[in-house]
Amino acid sequence: MNEHWMLTEIREQPEVAARIAEKEWEPICAVAEVIRRENLRYVMWAARGTSDNAAKYGKYLFEVQNGLPCGLAAPSVVTLYRSELNLKGSLVVGISQSGEAPDVIEYVTHAKSAGAVTVSITNNPLSPLAQASDFPLAIHAGPERSVAATKTYTGTLMSLYLLSCALKSFEKPQAEIEALVQAMQSALTLETTIRQSVDRYRYIRECVSLARGINQATAEEVGLKFIETCYVMAKSYSVADFMHGPFALVEPGFPCFLFAPDGATLPTVLEAAAKLKEGGAETIIFARDEQLLSLARAPIPVPVMVEEMVSPLVYVLLGQMFAFYLALARDLNPDQPRGLQKVTKTR
Amino acid sequence: MNEHWMLTEIREQPEVAARIAEKEWEPICAVAEVIRRENLRYVMWAARGTSDNAAKYGKYLFEVQNGLPCGLAAPSVVTLYRSELNLKGSLVVGISQSGEAPDVIEYVTHAKSAGAVTVSITNNPLSPLAQASDFPLAIHAGPERSVAATKTYTGTLMSLYLLSCALKSFEKPQAEIEALVQAMQSALTLETTIRQSVDRYRYIRECVSLARGINQATAEEVGLKFIETCYVMAKSYSVADFMHGPFALVEPGFPCFLFAPDGATLPTVLEAAAKLKEGGAETIIFARDEQLLSLARAPIPVPVMVEEMVSPLVYVLLGQMFAFYLALARDLNPDQPRGLQKVTKTR
Repeated sequence: MNEHWMLTEIREQPEVAARIAEKEWEPICAVAEVIRRENLRYVMWAARGTSDNAAKYGKYLFEVQNGLPCGLAAPSVVTLYRSELNLKGSLVVGISQSGEAPDVIEYVTHAKSAGAVTVSITNNPLSPLAQASDFPLAIHAGPERSVAATKTYTGTLMSLYLLSCALKSFEKPQAEIEALVQAMQSALTLETTIRQSVDRYRYIRECVSLARGINQATAEEVGLKFIETCYVMAKSYSVADFMHGPFALVEPGFPCFLFAPDGATLPTVLEAAAKLKEGGAETIIFARDEQLLSLARAPIPVPVMVEEMVSPLVYVLLGQMFAFYLALARDLNPDQPRGLQKVTKTR
Repeated sequence: MNEHWMLTEIREQPEVAARIAEKEWEPICAVAEVIRRENLRYVMWAARGTSDNAAKYGKYLFEVQNGLPCGLAAPSVVTLYRSELNLKGSLVVGISQSGEAPDVIEYVTHAKSAGAVTVSITNNPLSPLAQASDFPLAIHAGPERSVAATKTYTGTLMSLYLLSCALKSFEKPQAEIEALVQAMQSALTLETTIRQSVDRYRYIRECVSLARGINQATAEEVGLKFIETCYVMAKSYSVADFMHGPFALVEPGFPCFLFAPDGATLPTVLEAAAKLKEGGAETIIFARDEQLLSLARAPIPVPVMVEEMVSPLVYVLLGQMFAFYLALARDLNPDQPRGLQKVTKTR
């Protein structure tokens, strides 16, 4: 098998995460300092696509770890409706791997003039978005060649995790960082298991990708990978929202991917998994908890314990690998999704 | 044909909207007054399912009309992760037609103790959510019997519109209200057109529901109706996000519903519609603009001009009717989706 960029980049992720912790801790502490000094009250995240999924992680993380309420920006409010938002006392974070997303740049530029402190997270410190923001943070992921983003996604998550930690304490969480990088490496050891699991799904046309709490970002991002690389109509939900209507979709055999590390959300996920089983769904469950795995049609046992707040950096790797190998099983080239370019420019 | 609750309730919507304007203007003004007096800086919306789609409307509306930044609450941050959010200086709005959604109640209760001013919007002023909030607003929709919510959705939108207006000026926008109710009535006159359009989609298994800007709420809500009543795997997107990856789904014949009134978002929607046509998508376009309609495989011309900020109250009626008649065409009972109850209780 020829190597694909996507697989190479999936495998690079622990290394990229470690590099960010090494190179960006100081600029990240500078951001944390200004958030404290200016007593910023809430955060708005501006992003699209994969970066927007990273923003969802940021929302949960900053709300849970830092008590800072967060909202996801609707760029059109600024770019099309020309609204004057009152953003005094807020932190606005723009995320774009290329740093070239025009609407994110415009939102951040507006935010700055509207009184916000602005931060950008990009894989290019010379990009227009980096230059438009007060505090540009870099992902240090090296060029990402696959259209489907992987390492810039977890790189962004790592930056957000470090910023959240710096806000709690200026001491670098060295042990936690090492454990996390190690856990990401362990997740990659599931590659063979996953490669051997995908054939069964060669002909699925649709699926849902589910999680609860902070791993909603994982469910969304894996769903997006399925769409981009496998052309599977994947919908992502919080299991809580899924039970409010979309559960009507479940008929025997309906494929449901479930990302569920140990933690505060596990009991509600167990309930949902039992209900999915009852409805005859085909459940593919990525988890460590044995009771949960026992409810799966296709259990993918995760060999590592990881703190729930950083689990999205670990569990998403499994979903990325699943999407990658499923694309191959469907005779598609995951590096070249039809109709997409690497940089999407929305006005 | 036997009458269904869903159709009866769809038809009641202009009347419900008018009733809210008549009965709730004063309590709504009281909320506006406290937002001004306490100089509240941002809004967090707590809701699930259809109510969450109403919250998305609220987000765009308050950001565009009032310059008030908004975020959608993630209830699990409070209910599962037990985070202490610092909500001083914020307005927290809980939405639930039944007023019984446990996680929304818990979020609003937490918000109150965390320094927020709290508002609820329910169809039951005696419900626990109404009682938990500082300012309970009522929808006055009468009992909603269909599991698929319709009139409580537009009723909530109407309450939000009135609150946004009251924040701008304490003078009741009587002429605008009358024009809006009239436009909703005009939309209902498309019932026959829509009933005659659905057969072609008897066998679709999946579709996307698209809009840009404030009508993302419409796209999401109609997508949810398709899922609940037709068991169609509907995904809803901002056309902006759709071009960032999910466009890969488009193959000849792929059904794309597009809700696009005149206004600031129209040019970007025109671009997207042209790209969808190029990709061979089956586009079902609800619009007034002739150029846009000319790009549709199935144009649904909307007979009325409506201000973009209130257009979601008008355009959603078309989508609700489409979902209703499509369910009948698929020999399903839209009043009784499989696996769902009227009140969903998430912990």
